[in-house]
Amino acid sequence: MLELLLVIQMLEDEIRNRLDSLTKPPGSLGRLEELALRAGLIQQRAMPEIRTKAMTIFCADHGVAEEGVSAYPAEVTRQMMANFQAGGAAINVLCRNFGIEPIIVDMGAGKPTRNFTREPAMTREEALDAIDTGRSYSNSADVIGAGEMGIANSTSAAALLCAFAGIAPEEAAGRGTGLDDAGLSRKIDAIRKALALHRPETLDPIGVLAAVGGREIAAIVGLILGAAERRKIVVLDGFISCSAALVARAMQPEALDCVLFAHRSAERGHRKMLDALKARPLLDLDMRLGEGTGAALGIAILEAAVTLYREMATFGSAGVSKAS
Amino acid sequence: MLELLLVIQMLEDEIRNRLDSLTKPPGSLGRLEELALRAGLIQQRAMPEIRTKAMTIFCADHGVAEEGVSAYPAEVTRQMMANFQAGGAAINVLCRNFGIEPIIVDMGAGKPTRNFTREPAMTREEALDAIDTGRSYSNSADVIGAGEMGIANSTSAAALLCAFAGIAPEEAAGRGTGLDDAGLSRKIDAIRKALALHRPETLDPIGVLAAVGGREIAAIVGLILGAAERRKIVVLDGFISCSAALVARAMQPEALDCVLFAHRSAERGHRKMLDALKARPLLDLDMRLGEGTGAALGIAILEAAVTLYREMATFGSAGVSKAS
Repeated sequence: MLELLLVIQMLEDEIRNRLDSLTKPPGSLGRLEELALRAGLIQQRAMPEIRTKAMTIFCADHGVAEEGVSAYPAEVTRQMMANFQAGGAAINVLCRNFGIEPIIVDMGAGKPTRNFTREPAMTREEALDAIDTGRSYSNSADVIGAGEMGIANSTSAAALLCAFAGIAPEEAAGRGTGLDDAGLSRKIDAIRKALALHRPETLDPIGVLAAVGGREIAAIVGLILGAAERRKIVVLDGFISCSAALVARAMQPEALDCVLFAHRSAERGHRKMLDALKARPLLDLDMRLGEGTGAALGIAILEAAVTLYREMATFGSAGVSKAS
Repeated sequence: MLELLLVIQMLEDEIRNRLDSLTKPPGSLGRLEELALRAGLIQQRAMPEIRTKAMTIFCADHGVAEEGVSAYPAEVTRQMMANFQAGGAAINVLCRNFGIEPIIVDMGAGKPTRNFTREPAMTREEALDAIDTGRSYSNSADVIGAGEMGIANSTSAAALLCAFAGIAPEEAAGRGTGLDDAGLSRKIDAIRKALALHRPETLDPIGVLAAVGGREIAAIVGLILGAAERRKIVVLDGFISCSAALVARAMQPEALDCVLFAHRSAERGHRKMLDALKARPLLDLDMRLGEGTGAALGIAILEAAVTLYREMATFGSAGVSKAS
């Protein structure tokens, strides 16, 4: 254990030394330097590399949608999945633009989980199966974005935020895709009912996930756990994507070492969720679409950072004087 | 005039209608939607387009460097220019990564302006010549980043911030490339001396630019003015690049309509400068390198926004239900 820590410290020193040898004032690339370091530490190599980029888009339906908690009808999950397959959605455009391979995964679109205001959304077995499916995508590329689609899934994510971070439902719930005041009240009520019914216990994260989660969220939990084992980089997206990190952390805190947080969503509860995760996201562009759209931009920034680290000239090679 | 305003309003309505027809909840792409709209308004077309991207990197030396206001010796300007030409600097890597053409412009590297603590840095004629040179690059591409290199040029930029926004020297001056406390004191003193000597008058922006500016800053002023005439998009970088916007605005306020602010630099005075410009930058990544590095990331975000606007499917074409 001590030896491992020493090896990691040596790797970090080696990366920092290279960063300071590049033709720029030390630290002047700011968070791009942090990103190169993080990539090296995750990949455990002094010369991190991003050869392949993928975006998983896990799609699933939610029984709680019948409580009127979304501005859109439940069939939109399947319609948007068809849109992803046809290449017309925002995430398709961003993936093409940044050379990211989109991977659309049907986690049960059209086969909703149970309505968690009345019973657990999933059995433990169903939740574990969905985790395993997500885990099977953790070898898709060197860096993998975690996108999702599922009408009503911001209600699930908000319930997970309440359960894992002790946030009140009225603080955790936001307008999602554009809920009106009455819809927002129904959403808060649904979460309140669910918390009273299931009494989630964070010492049993799979139980909490089964009670109020969804299959796409469970898949992202699995993606994170698998990536941590395989030393792949996972780039999380917004409110729903990050709710999986709450579950993964409760299962295995070190798993989050492989995770980067792409952006702060405009969805109300995301700031509190990021605070609970002690995460400082890269971008803050008022986006709230999901699908992995924020993660795609985050991957582009990460790739730029790693490429800078790999390709910039050093003071020595370029014959540039150092600071006096 | 009224007719022009009506035409612009109709264009804005047309772009907003298209944005709301794309398969996403209205407004859910946040600032990316604003960017698509801005691009359309600048190009005056309902279908904005980015076919070509360039990054100007204006390089110049500053007489005030002899006051000991930089952590690096003045010859680094020429050394870094050689590094740009060889393709080894940070901005080269980012330009390659994002398909941006770098344009390195020698604005007098090795031929410093005069030391503005004793006399005006430039004559009016020299300042106007530099503006004209910058203006000649405003047709380089559909979107043009405004980068720069010049040892001691953050002292010039800070002096311009004091002159145009009434900020005190100790608030405007920062550590630049990594100045120590003694260097920072010298920098503040140099600015104070210059302000007392030249008594800059913002009603004469060219006089202020000549007194405490630099040739690379003047070139960016010209780039902005020329881009405004040609309806090209200029993406500004950090503290030095944005100081040119203070001058351009004083000369012609509407010129800034063609300008996007890429990022908030970690340089101390940049926040106040952006406030003075009423600008909300896209990124905040603790970068403070200059060269156009922040602008390159900004161009990548802008291109993503325009591509989303152009390529996403509509609700109608994709058969996706709208919100209830």
